[in-house]
Amino acid sequence: MLRFTHESLGQRVVFAPSDAAAAVAAEVAALEASRVMLIASAREAVLADPIAAGIPVAVRHDEVVMHVPVPVGERARAAAADAGVDAIVTVGGGSTTGLGKAVALATGLPIVAVPTTYAGSEATNVWGLTEGETKTTGVDARVLPRSIVYDASLLTSLPADLAVASGLNALAHGVDAMWGPRADPIDAALAGEGIRGLADGLPVVARDGASVAGVENTLYGAYLAAVAFASAGSGLHHKICHVLGGMFNLPHAQTHAVVLPHVLAFNAPNAPEAQRRIAAAIGTDTAVAGLAALRAAVDAPTALRDYGMPQDGIPKAVAPILAAAPANNPTPLTEENRT
Amino acid sequence: MLRFTHESLGQRVVFAPSDAAAAVAAEVAALEASRVMLIASAREAVLADPIAAGIPVAVRHDEVVMHVPVPVGERARAAAADAGVDAIVTVGGGSTTGLGKAVALATGLPIVAVPTTYAGSEATNVWGLTEGETKTTGVDARVLPRSIVYDASLLTSLPADLAVASGLNALAHGVDAMWGPRADPIDAALAGEGIRGLADGLPVVARDGASVAGVENTLYGAYLAAVAFASAGSGLHHKICHVLGGMFNLPHAQTHAVVLPHVLAFNAPNAPEAQRRIAAAIGTDTAVAGLAALRAAVDAPTALRDYGMPQDGIPKAVAPILAAAPANNPTPLTEENRT
Repeated sequence: MLRFTHESLGQRVVFAPSDAAAAVAAEVAALEASRVMLIASAREAVLADPIAAGIPVAVRHDEVVMHVPVPVGERARAAAADAGVDAIVTVGGGSTTGLGKAVALATGLPIVAVPTTYAGSEATNVWGLTEGETKTTGVDARVLPRSIVYDASLLTSLPADLAVASGLNALAHGVDAMWGPRADPIDAALAGEGIRGLADGLPVVARDGASVAGVENTLYGAYLAAVAFASAGSGLHHKICHVLGGMFNLPHAQTHAVVLPHVLAFNAPNAPEAQRRIAAAIGTDTAVAGLAALRAAVDAPTALRDYGMPQDGIPKAVAPILAAAPANNPTPLTEENRT
Repeated sequence: MLRFTHESLGQRVVFAPSDAAAAVAAEVAALEASRVMLIASAREAVLADPIAAGIPVAVRHDEVVMHVPVPVGERARAAAADAGVDAIVTVGGGSTTGLGKAVALATGLPIVAVPTTYAGSEATNVWGLTEGETKTTGVDARVLPRSIVYDASLLTSLPADLAVASGLNALAHGVDAMWGPRADPIDAALAGEGIRGLADGLPVVARDGASVAGVENTLYGAYLAAVAFASAGSGLHHKICHVLGGMFNLPHAQTHAVVLPHVLAFNAPNAPEAQRRIAAAIGTDTAVAGLAALRAAVDAPTALRDYGMPQDGIPKAVAPILAAAPANNPTPLTEENRT
């Protein structure tokens, strides 16, 4: 029986290959903004400069730090207030978008996000701030960027290993959206389309990072995977990665890349609709074979031991993972049913 | 190259089979509304009564007229003002939703829409008002219902011929969204999922109108087809139907049902992505075969002459159709290239 609630978030998304400056200028003009805060790290300055030239920048801010520490967010808010800005433009990855969200959360200022990775934060209404070791996240309509401008040419200089890691992270959004706690058929359809884009684009990016066509398809897939994931919520895969990352200080992207096929293999037998959609998206007979082929094509990492996971860590992780697993996971979790 | 702008409309959609009253009450409570205008025609009163019982109704309004004549809209606005309402709940088909939109357009009041047909108006930000013979339409964010509540049990008493006609109208939304003037890949993906729902549900509804499962899938498909159509805009199919309907006073639903396969056959050779998506959605080798099978399964009408189209009308319709056809139609239109 079809019984679910789906919330579509209102947002404009502009795919403008090699045309970010003009597209951002149009979005800023549509907001009738005249004093823009431009957020971009020093490393992204070269990407942000042409965009800055086309909009009325009142202040540029480059203090971008992973996970948005509270003092970093506060300094950005103070800069926005001092400059009397009426809109925010972010040029960067998840941390840059996240800093824009920290400002929007306090001020309600509209954001135009220009992503330079496949992180997907630009498609969600989730914010995050870190106080010491503790990351607090929340959901607020004010932090959802009003517009996203995707310009593939901004990602063609991304190093291949970073591009693949970021793309595999996006793939995990799409797969986990199939069975997240709030997953619904619309999420599954969007995630399927996202996986299709990633399966088309990511192998091309892995071979040739400068391929605009490869980056475009990957961006398209990453966007829809993020939309679906934001709606469905964290499924088993993200819960496991969160526990393992926290317990053993494992690197984020590689942990996701290694864990994903195991979660798919564990859930697939009890998730026929997810199986069907993932297989159709990748163009293979089964979802498991499709993910394996896609991982092989991009030379994805295969073992957590390569990233610092201790052999005797597995038993220690069982209890916290059992506690964190969503109740609606297709295959019920017990201590015994390891794959 | 991926170059497009897609605007997602922010909206909650609740699928609540046999549970409209509780779901509407929850949506009204979330709006913190205490004085509701309930719009439902006298014919729909029996469906609206249980919903009315669960919400704070300040006024009930039953003057629902097709195409929303201006005086009808004005009387509804006056009723809303007199009663000091803070939200609108509509229970009905496209004309009922349309009347709610006429009130919202003037007042900004939030709408909770409870559809009893597959019309799809509830998923769009388009309003329409008719002055004499002239229908004026427009786009305004205020008329997009904040929430939709789909309860399949409200449609199980719909007569089979009306249900099929309404469902085929929804199918035309999905097919035409593939190549409308603003069509983009996201529209195509949503339309494909919508066509899948319609292909699953509509043959069941045609055989057994009381099948909740059949109605649910049809509602799900009709919703996504409407979302995609609202984003893509009217394609060749809707332009042709508009011209023919206006020139020869043909019935709306039947005209759509007859014309659709011809437009698909005309465009399919030059629309490989639409072909692929429609065929996959229906589960057939080609889109044309899929639509033919689906039409046969629901005994769809096949000839406009049965509805009053004169044989000598075709030459007269050519010029206005050529003038109305979208410039981006996959197969270019000329006077000669009739199928």
